[in-house]
Amino acid sequence: MPELRKDPVIGRWVIIATERRKRPTDFGVKAEACVLDTTTCPFCEGNEAKTPPEIIAFRNGSPPNSPGWEVRVIPNKFPALAIEGDLSRRGDGMFDMMNGVGAHEVIVETPKHSCNFDEMTERQVEQVLWAYRDRIIDLKKDPRLQYILIFKNKGRDAGASLEHTHSQLIALPIVPKRVSEELKGSREYFNFKERCVFCDIIRQEIQDGSRVVAENQDFIVLSPYAPKSPYETWILPKQHQSSFEMVRPDQMPQLAQTLHRLMLKMAVVLGNPPYNYMIHTAPLHQDPPHYHWHIEIMPKLTQVAGFEWGSGFYINPAPPEDAAQELRAANV
Amino acid sequence: MPELRKDPVIGRWVIIATERRKRPTDFGVKAEACVLDTTTCPFCEGNEAKTPPEIIAFRNGSPPNSPGWEVRVIPNKFPALAIEGDLSRRGDGMFDMMNGVGAHEVIVETPKHSCNFDEMTERQVEQVLWAYRDRIIDLKKDPRLQYILIFKNKGRDAGASLEHTHSQLIALPIVPKRVSEELKGSREYFNFKERCVFCDIIRQEIQDGSRVVAENQDFIVLSPYAPKSPYETWILPKQHQSSFEMVRPDQMPQLAQTLHRLMLKMAVVLGNPPYNYMIHTAPLHQDPPHYHWHIEIMPKLTQVAGFEWGSGFYINPAPPEDAAQELRAANV
Repeated sequence: MPELRKDPVIGRWVIIATERRKRPTDFGVKAEACVLDTTTCPFCEGNEAKTPPEIIAFRNGSPPNSPGWEVRVIPNKFPALAIEGDLSRRGDGMFDMMNGVGAHEVIVETPKHSCNFDEMTERQVEQVLWAYRDRIIDLKKDPRLQYILIFKNKGRDAGASLEHTHSQLIALPIVPKRVSEELKGSREYFNFKERCVFCDIIRQEIQDGSRVVAENQDFIVLSPYAPKSPYETWILPKQHQSSFEMVRPDQMPQLAQTLHRLMLKMAVVLGNPPYNYMIHTAPLHQDPPHYHWHIEIMPKLTQVAGFEWGSGFYINPAPPEDAAQELRAANV
Repeated sequence: MPELRKDPVIGRWVIIATERRKRPTDFGVKAEACVLDTTTCPFCEGNEAKTPPEIIAFRNGSPPNSPGWEVRVIPNKFPALAIEGDLSRRGDGMFDMMNGVGAHEVIVETPKHSCNFDEMTERQVEQVLWAYRDRIIDLKKDPRLQYILIFKNKGRDAGASLEHTHSQLIALPIVPKRVSEELKGSREYFNFKERCVFCDIIRQEIQDGSRVVAENQDFIVLSPYAPKSPYETWILPKQHQSSFEMVRPDQMPQLAQTLHRLMLKMAVVLGNPPYNYMIHTAPLHQDPPHYHWHIEIMPKLTQVAGFEWGSGFYINPAPPEDAAQELRAANV
């Protein structure tokens, strides 16, 4: 019998379609070839002149925009938002608009041409996480901004236009809708229970065990109870933290290990799929007791997204207990 | 300067990314070939035995499940929901679930193997709309159901698994999230203004003109002010109607003409793209003064959906004024 399950944070129902149940190989993932074109790739070491001047880079003492770096952050060459200007909120008849002010940056994750997390070391992943944190702390100073969205598109089918492994950052004068929904849902839960809903989820999932993919001292990896897409997976800090930049320096290596191993497991179980991940964190300058930052990882396995994001109605052919079991079992 | 625009119904902000502006040919749409395999296609006339027994069909007097029909409605062979059983709402610790009870049907739009609206006549499109209406009226009798979602996936990239042109119907014991959001947003507007927000949008758009694609006596086609995806287009009745099944018999030919011509325009302007459309209508047994049924059409032109539906944050490289202008100009 198919099940309708309700997301405990935002209240969305999804169908876990048991009659259409799919195994990892049923999705027919075609891993994309990685073309080692290091002469034209603008993200490769030595090609720094092909990008706008860098914002920050972790360097061995070499001058900006030259070789000798580990992680490099640059402005997006085709930014969705403009960094200069003011918001000028205004009406257009019954409609509302403002100027598209904000930042759009690219985090180049490694100087060597590589398409996958697999080829990076845990130490490199940790450097990437530090770069995320440094950029958040710097952009927080801009009073026009309300939210910083950090995400990664891997593979053409997940929206990446360049294959050299990179993440993106978009700093916004508004809070994105999905995060607003999580803030609202978790606030309502807190008002009723006086507890963080994410903390409660973690406690119940550890007790139950069937949807836990991995854990170490400070982080847990879960297949959520009501996932909107197959093999959707969340990483959460076990102790309450509202914002990503609150991760303590001594926790960073653990977080890097957690993310790196999960991506290796995804690659093994699903055959190197395209994917998206994004960090859901509290709005800037807020530390709500009801919100708990986390990373959502969504491999792109099905093509139905168009209809689903238009209706808000999701049919998931992979029960999260099955997904967790396979990811847990994968040896990496 | 990029613009942030707010959807007047659900309040979601989108970026109209003027720096990344795209023309129709920039999306690189590859029209999918239509393979005329009429011997194995289960939707072709003569192959009725390859499907579950039909629910209804518009026939010339021939017996059920034989040739001689114009539109045929059958149960989905791999249904996402089960038609038998009761809901049994229950908890699972802090989580909530119920049985996946509902209906999942396929509307086969033509007996001849065809992949496109282009090859159908207006009269055939009208028959399809009548089939939608008949199924809604019949399924309304089931007290377990709250909502009927009618949609079409065209092309593999938009989630269609069979190419013979067809739509789907899912009858649900819940209201899908996006529709709930529209109901809530339009109720709030109504409470404040004592007018339907959709009626107000139509009035303003007719006055402004820049986002109107087409209109006839009873229906209007718009590029919405804050579209989440390029070339997203809505069809609305000009006079207030909360539910699709309220369309009057004398309006059906006009609606068929509107939908048919819009799909021809999309095919010409965008090169026969894959697409999704869905009917947003009021929940069953409700006739709210604040809700206004409409059809949303979303050509699938970009691959960023994964990230976008995880964040609720949309970047649209095609200003709706440009999209409307090109669709308006297309001669069909």
